[in-house]
Amino acid sequence: MTQDDPLYRRPDQPTEHRVEDLLSRMTLEEKAGQVVGTWAGERGETHDIPVVRDTVAEHGFGSVAAFGWAGAAVSTPREIVEAVNTLQETAMEETRLSIPVLFTVDAVHGHAYVEDATVFPNGLGAAATWDPKLIERSAAATAREVRATGAHQNYSPTCDVAREPRWGRVQETHGESPRLAADFAAAKVWGLQGEGIDDPESVVATAKHFPAYSDPERGQDGAPVEVSEYVLGNTFLPPFEAAIDAGVESVMPAYSATNGEPAHASIQLLTDRLRDELDFDGHVVADWSGIKQLHESHGVTADWRESVRRTREAGLDVGSVDHTVHVEELVELVEDGQLDEAILDDSVRRVLRVKFELGLFEEPFIDVEDAVSTLGCDEHRELARETASQSMTLLENDGILPLSGDETVFVGGPNADNLVHQVGGWSHHEEAGLAGDTVREAIEERAAGEVLFEQGATLIEERDIDAAVEKASRADVAVLGLGEGWYIHEFGPQDMLGTDTGEWPTRSELRLPPAQRRLAEAIHATGTPVVGVLLTGRPLIVDWLAEHADALLMAYFPGSEGGQAVAETLFGDRDPGGRLPISIARSHGDLPQLHDHARHPLTLGKAEHPDSYDPLYPFGHGLSYTTFERRDLELTETAVGPDGTVSVAMTVENVGSRPGEDVIQVYGRQETPSRVRPDRELVGYDRVALDPGEARTVEIGVPVEHFGFYKPGEGHVLEGDTYHVTVAGMEAAFTVE
Amino acid sequence: MTQDDPLYRRPDQPTEHRVEDLLSRMTLEEKAGQVVGTWAGERGETHDIPVVRDTVAEHGFGSVAAFGWAGAAVSTPREIVEAVNTLQETAMEETRLSIPVLFTVDAVHGHAYVEDATVFPNGLGAAATWDPKLIERSAAATAREVRATGAHQNYSPTCDVAREPRWGRVQETHGESPRLAADFAAAKVWGLQGEGIDDPESVVATAKHFPAYSDPERGQDGAPVEVSEYVLGNTFLPPFEAAIDAGVESVMPAYSATNGEPAHASIQLLTDRLRDELDFDGHVVADWSGIKQLHESHGVTADWRESVRRTREAGLDVGSVDHTVHVEELVELVEDGQLDEAILDDSVRRVLRVKFELGLFEEPFIDVEDAVSTLGCDEHRELARETASQSMTLLENDGILPLSGDETVFVGGPNADNLVHQVGGWSHHEEAGLAGDTVREAIEERAAGEVLFEQGATLIEERDIDAAVEKASRADVAVLGLGEGWYIHEFGPQDMLGTDTGEWPTRSELRLPPAQRRLAEAIHATGTPVVGVLLTGRPLIVDWLAEHADALLMAYFPGSEGGQAVAETLFGDRDPGGRLPISIARSHGDLPQLHDHARHPLTLGKAEHPDSYDPLYPFGHGLSYTTFERRDLELTETAVGPDGTVSVAMTVENVGSRPGEDVIQVYGRQETPSRVRPDRELVGYDRVALDPGEARTVEIGVPVEHFGFYKPGEGHVLEGDTYHVTVAGMEAAFTVE
Repeated sequence: MTQDDPLYRRPDQPTEHRVEDLLSRMTLEEKAGQVVGTWAGERGETHDIPVVRDTVAEHGFGSVAAFGWAGAAVSTPREIVEAVNTLQETAMEETRLSIPVLFTVDAVHGHAYVEDATVFPNGLGAAATWDPKLIERSAAATAREVRATGAHQNYSPTCDVAREPRWGRVQETHGESPRLAADFAAAKVWGLQGEGIDDPESVVATAKHFPAYSDPERGQDGAPVEVSEYVLGNTFLPPFEAAIDAGVESVMPAYSATNGEPAHASIQLLTDRLRDELDFDGHVVADWSGIKQLHESHGVTADWRESVRRTREAGLDVGSVDHTVHVEELVELVEDGQLDEAILDDSVRRVLRVKFELGLFEEPFIDVEDAVSTLGCDEHRELARETASQSMTLLENDGILPLSGDETVFVGGPNADNLVHQVGGWSHHEEAGLAGDTVREAIEERAAGEVLFEQGATLIEERDIDAAVEKASRADVAVLGLGEGWYIHEFGPQDMLGTDTGEWPTRSELRLPPAQRRLAEAIHATGTPVVGVLLTGRPLIVDWLAEHADALLMAYFPGSEGGQAVAETLFGDRDPGGRLPISIARSHGDLPQLHDHARHPLTLGKAEHPDSYDPLYPFGHGLSYTTFERRDLELTETAVGPDGTVSVAMTVENVGSRPGEDVIQVYGRQETPSRVRPDRELVGYDRVALDPGEARTVEIGVPVEHFGFYKPGEGHVLEGDTYHVTVAGMEAAFTVE
Repeated sequence: MTQDDPLYRRPDQPTEHRVEDLLSRMTLEEKAGQVVGTWAGERGETHDIPVVRDTVAEHGFGSVAAFGWAGAAVSTPREIVEAVNTLQETAMEETRLSIPVLFTVDAVHGHAYVEDATVFPNGLGAAATWDPKLIERSAAATAREVRATGAHQNYSPTCDVAREPRWGRVQETHGESPRLAADFAAAKVWGLQGEGIDDPESVVATAKHFPAYSDPERGQDGAPVEVSEYVLGNTFLPPFEAAIDAGVESVMPAYSATNGEPAHASIQLLTDRLRDELDFDGHVVADWSGIKQLHESHGVTADWRESVRRTREAGLDVGSVDHTVHVEELVELVEDGQLDEAILDDSVRRVLRVKFELGLFEEPFIDVEDAVSTLGCDEHRELARETASQSMTLLENDGILPLSGDETVFVGGPNADNLVHQVGGWSHHEEAGLAGDTVREAIEERAAGEVLFEQGATLIEERDIDAAVEKASRADVAVLGLGEGWYIHEFGPQDMLGTDTGEWPTRSELRLPPAQRRLAEAIHATGTPVVGVLLTGRPLIVDWLAEHADALLMAYFPGSEGGQAVAETLFGDRDPGGRLPISIARSHGDLPQLHDHARHPLTLGKAEHPDSYDPLYPFGHGLSYTTFERRDLELTETAVGPDGTVSVAMTVENVGSRPGEDVIQVYGRQETPSRVRPDRELVGYDRVALDPGEARTVEIGVPVEHFGFYKPGEGHVLEGDTYHVTVAGMEAAFTVE
């Protein structure tokens, strides 16, 4: 750098000056290129790295998705580093203004699409820890791995609140509670962005999918989410608000429509709501097909041209992988006077600001040794193991768990020895590139007694069930790894799934397929106690297992270290301290089961009606190997101001004989709200580890605003009223004046 | 009447003068009494007629529900007439101003709670006729029967659009299509109110349940309906708008909450929307528990006092059966200055206007012989038979139907010989008081061959299946009457249901119970062809029958003459011309299945996604005994103004050898709407009867506004665009400038 360099090249200058200087030098074409991205890999059409290099040279694309997603061109650390450096070199040397490329990835639970990376539990498992601080650390580790491979923006966190278990993306969510989802969204933003994106170990976080995507009609991914303004404000927006409060740099709209408006094309959502009401000042990046869907499927525009215009007018900044068509339409729209160039300029400013703050102009290149030594390093994998371990949620236990370690253990089922199924979707999908141990491997490593393995069934096909039965008969206990396999979105894509996964999971069937059920029944019939381990992205309907298995462990998609986490839980090295972040229904006909559903009348009277929130396992459920006594609930104040915090104190004692981890859950209820509210909703929680005999006073500070609600037309309100607090069957109350 | 009579007693005076005159004479207590009703019968607490007489004398209640509902005190025509005349005598002679009582009933499918009355098919069956003119006639017959028993207001039509098959009130609806539901709502208003309520054969119609009640969470009756403004306007409001356009005199709010507001307490809904936007100027009558639910279950008020205040301020006029508590609270609220007496006065005006227009002051008493000769008269029962017959919807037929008449016919199943199940809910629930024939009786009457009967199973319990199998084996065909029994609301009330119906129907299970399935399987296993007849209020999940039965007939709850309608359909006396007004799903996991769901993206691409609208039987489905050829679709104009009508013409020919009835269904689609719209939605239809070889040009005039939609903030819009019309696989298009 010299004093002769253009102002925008000088890091000593304020970012806004650099932005304006660079913007003033850009042609219309360069501006258009800067707010559009392309991809390297297979996405209907295949772009290899040389092709991408040429198009970057020609169009100066602002961003490239070259790795870290399902169909990416490269997936090994060395390939990635080479691709990144090649493309950055192109951008720096072959474009007129030498603007570096922003690389984007889908690192939703670790940098999981990259070989040898650390794979954390996906969102639902993360939420099951009820420990946002831990998840913040795992997000920070993810940021380090992402940044080490040269990427700068992560399409995470998922802020979608899981209200529909049939939906194929429940695995990515943090469950059904807006409170829990908000806390984990903020934690991931803090973890990914660190102290700010000028931190060289941080990346740009992306809150997705705004505003409501996770309760689609018929459970179909991308179908409309036609909820009321009241539900939008109370259920779906809180995680976005939390992410924005945490400083999230980017927001991605949902594929779905609300009020008949696809989010990508909605001025009301992207401008009025997101920028004006929620005060978001970062950049809005399209979901991959979000723009072309407007004409291709939603049908609200006639063609690409109109889709680009509509989304730009709505407030979208970046067309993530729209390639040349978006650039060309944008240029013509401005040239034809159909789009105000000032709109485009604002988007360019937002993109350039991020690149300057990331230090990208100064440090566009990366080092291969740094990438290799960071990806899947011991520290990160230990953190992934800790996270997976803390997520383990024991649904049933008749006393068979924990195992002593000396038993003869039978291990079977489609998910007991399959790393691809264990990491679940949004991950590399070939075993060869995955670090970590399977459940079977971890059990073999940990068990002192004999371990007998026979798969017995794939996800949907019976294998040698007789052999499984024969081995199980000889064992003291049978551990069955059951559940779902690798999938993304609407249970695909087919070309990445083995032949045995195409028929299941599906949207409409939440029961285990017949092959898995028959395996479980046959093993149960041997008389050997059965321990079911569910490796699944969604809360399945498991009434048979609930009744017949001797123990049932919900492991979610626990990631690369999940096998170890399951084994240490089964053998009691660690208390299963996870708690369900989502209700598990008894049957399809009971859906949706949501702990915080609003009060409603029972039209024929109370005696006539079984409660229709009657899950097989409720939200917050999870058993321990020890016994906790909770007593002496007390609120430190009984009258609190609207900006205050209510301090919920109680004594928790481990009265059992093993160390254990309890999750204290605080539920709130307003006595007489002006609108219908839930009888209980989660307002606070804490996770405490206690040795046998240890008693501790736990004090949970709950901001009083957590008891308020969103009232259409008025925004967040906290009404003067009595508020009830429930913790583990104990009750207390306070008033707000 | 003399010139000395007070003005309000003089029918020669304009109604508004009579209203003002009477109002000016009323005390606060008399006003309060006039806008509140009471009941005679069992409703938690029992009121017998003498008790009601005393309270009418004391409080001058404006209305009484003494008969024509589930727990009513009297149900025979003679008891009813005596009760009516007694209470009117009390009102006329023992209250200061001699204001007659308005009697209200739940005559939703005929005056069905009254013994010997004509029981028409319930709403879903009525809609299956696709013949609103016929239903208008049946509503007019109902009005005659209601009025003959001295009642003046009928809580009908149901304007709820059935979007949730688990809901217990689907039976009352006119199906899933807003268009169909709007047409049938209007038809019932015209039928009930005739040329106006001064017609002595008319009654006040009540559009219910405003604005959205029929898509409750978890399918639970009364649970919130938290749909977007867009869905509210496009799906749920059209039948209310149609009823208001037809001049409906009364509207009843829903028990449920929308946007967190119970409809009964919502100024936004009852005043801003209903009166200001929709121009409704009749009276708003509370659903029975609608007011007390505010404090008892919704929890948005603290007590009766506040509930009365909130509902009055929201725009409610009549507390239907709130008895003395509502009167007392109302008086005190006005006296304490907490409620403006002007609000009360407006409600009193609305109630008095109706009573004057009905001619109630002049003719309060009724004649027992008139009641007896009108109820269930031949003309009405013939109309009920015609309606039931036109509703019969043939889902499957491998050729076994129509029967020749000479076969040996086995008849079995819980609904083949049970009039209570056949009429379904919202009817008298004891066989003794029901007119009509069962399916078995009608088959025995019609068949030339032998008829063997064995029930085989109740709704939920096996009976002598072996005996059924033995008899079925000897038959040429087995007709099984399967389905649901009598229920209202959330599948109760228990005290009116036999012991064998308490476990089913239920909200969460739409499959036939095991006992019915086992009966069907056992009969099928004999090799005798099986004809399933479904007598049910809801679209059940019948995949087994669809696959194994030789024919499957959807009979809905067909009413007192439904047995005859089934028999004449089975024997081919009449072509089954009914068509499904609701989609039938394959499985619980597929719900909701709605033909007019909005377009949406397929997130992994088209090849990955089976269409998630994939019903077992689609909306509009129904087979005929003959074959229709439809050809030469033509639109008489290809450019139409926004207020115009598009005339959809085609030729329909009966190319089979039997007379038949075809229902021509016209579906519309806007090419590029500004908001996401359905790929198809019903916009018009016609039912045509054709003899063998007969060809006819059918011309269906569809108002162009049926192609428009409700756009939040703008109201109903019809955008300049191309519109596509689909009829029986043929397509055409027109433009709107």
